[in-house]
Amino acid sequence: MSDAPHSVDPTQAPRRDDDRQPGFATRLHERIQRLDTRVCLGIDPRPAAHPWTDPAAHAHDPARVGRAVAAYAREVLAATHDLVACVKPQSAFFEALGIPGLIALAQVIADARSRDVPVILDAKRGDIGSTAEAYAAAYLADGVFAADALTVNPYLGLDTLEPFLTAAEAGGRGLFVLVKTSNPGSGDLQDVVTAAGGRLHEQLADALARRNADMARDAHGYGPLGAVVGATYPRELTAARERLPGSILLVPGYGAQGATARDVVGAFDARGLGAVVNASRSLFYPTRGDDVGAAARTATAAMRDDLNGALARREG
Amino acid sequence: MSDAPHSVDPTQAPRRDDDRQPGFATRLHERIQRLDTRVCLGIDPRPAAHPWTDPAAHAHDPARVGRAVAAYAREVLAATHDLVACVKPQSAFFEALGIPGLIALAQVIADARSRDVPVILDAKRGDIGSTAEAYAAAYLADGVFAADALTVNPYLGLDTLEPFLTAAEAGGRGLFVLVKTSNPGSGDLQDVVTAAGGRLHEQLADALARRNADMARDAHGYGPLGAVVGATYPRELTAARERLPGSILLVPGYGAQGATARDVVGAFDARGLGAVVNASRSLFYPTRGDDVGAAARTATAAMRDDLNGALARREG
Repeated sequence: MSDAPHSVDPTQAPRRDDDRQPGFATRLHERIQRLDTRVCLGIDPRPAAHPWTDPAAHAHDPARVGRAVAAYAREVLAATHDLVACVKPQSAFFEALGIPGLIALAQVIADARSRDVPVILDAKRGDIGSTAEAYAAAYLADGVFAADALTVNPYLGLDTLEPFLTAAEAGGRGLFVLVKTSNPGSGDLQDVVTAAGGRLHEQLADALARRNADMARDAHGYGPLGAVVGATYPRELTAARERLPGSILLVPGYGAQGATARDVVGAFDARGLGAVVNASRSLFYPTRGDDVGAAARTATAAMRDDLNGALARREG
Repeated sequence: MSDAPHSVDPTQAPRRDDDRQPGFATRLHERIQRLDTRVCLGIDPRPAAHPWTDPAAHAHDPARVGRAVAAYAREVLAATHDLVACVKPQSAFFEALGIPGLIALAQVIADARSRDVPVILDAKRGDIGSTAEAYAAAYLADGVFAADALTVNPYLGLDTLEPFLTAAEAGGRGLFVLVKTSNPGSGDLQDVVTAAGGRLHEQLADALARRNADMARDAHGYGPLGAVVGATYPRELTAARERLPGSILLVPGYGAQGATARDVVGAFDARGLGAVVNASRSLFYPTRGDDVGAAARTATAAMRDDLNGALARREG
């Protein structure tokens, strides 16, 4: 695998959307049905895990690391794009690589979009007022980091989601609000039992469902306001499906974090829609050898089939 | 004001810290006492607000916008650095400007650090496991975005703070956890009354205080784990001072958001330590004219004196 130069200069080529593009839910569901896949390919670049010939040569050359990350991601995407419903670059890993890392992020987003693969940027942003507007402008408008959907953190309050929702509605994009995350300590705040009865993340889910009900729906009843619910909490996942009938669920935790296909079937509606399941390490770093593309394709197809098989058994 | 080229190439010059540097609380308090200022200068670049000769000339030239932002911030910093305890760049506004905006962020951080002004990067990051480690590596280690302290969002759970605390302790950096934010809707989650009694943000503050108690303290009893509490909620601010005796409070909301010096005195301990008060728009965009430096200096000195006056009256 070579460190190919960027074929697009992401500092100079802002993308203009067609304002009439269908909404995020419509586009995602069309892909899920046409390709029969519910896999979200997590792109979490960890240069130390790259099967490079000579990692030491890259250690003090941030620009070369950034180019290698973009080239590696392009190779995985080229081998798997028809097997995935969407991709989810994790912004943190790009930010950790400095300016070249962020150029690589812009490149990865451009590569995915050039293949019409929806991009969920996992950046977990959240802030107030005009600062939230700036984040929405960065990630849900037409700049080099513009994605099809963005993950956001609700702790600052529901008013802080509005600038993101405005941008999502205007541009046919989606939002995934953190509801119940997949980590062991997610209960510290999310599971706090409230005086009103129920847990904080349930109260949040109900508020999100009410807000989503005000927004445009796709043919299957889904709006732009989705939710993140971890596969490592299967009961909460099934309950979230019911509490958030019009929200697509982004489900992390499959694979490396220990959840199985059986754990995630509750995220899907009766038609097998309404959710995507993310895996990062197992798909993006499937081998230490040179045959990255072939290994990624094999791993992604296996995950697709694993999910579809579990759904078929549920229906059977 | 000219669009000066970057004097430091932030893609090429990672900063190496002296591991023996004093902790963040020590460095911040030394400055507060030596310069007698509790002002945190918020750096929220909004290119549309810049007193440029010809904004239209910049509109389609992202690189020029980025350079202008860095040059503008440098001018404000040059005029105010001896009047401020610290600066707080708001990452969202830089991210919204794409790659050139992030180069400007690296430049602003480098400029502030070259003047020994502590930098609190307001990025409100938060994620799980190795992703939180990547954020900590990006913002609390030695890359181009490395700051003296970082704001973080606790919704994902206390375990997700640990990678940031590890980095903070290793490098003498600080952390500001969102506890009670300044926006109107901050109560949606933060003020939820729990079955245990009390409100969510109070329960969080107690947990943070326990965690902070395990960490190294400065001469005045403050550790690396600080908290964000909005000036727009003065009662909560005074209560937070008591609940978080070893935490420096970062207090937004003064000025443009409506809070006064009297609203924020409760954030400080009896020695006038333990907090910094942020203002962004009123200090960073004090004029539409060309005399940005002079106007910023006047506005910053006035805010410093306003805060010190209110503290003196409290003590009197």
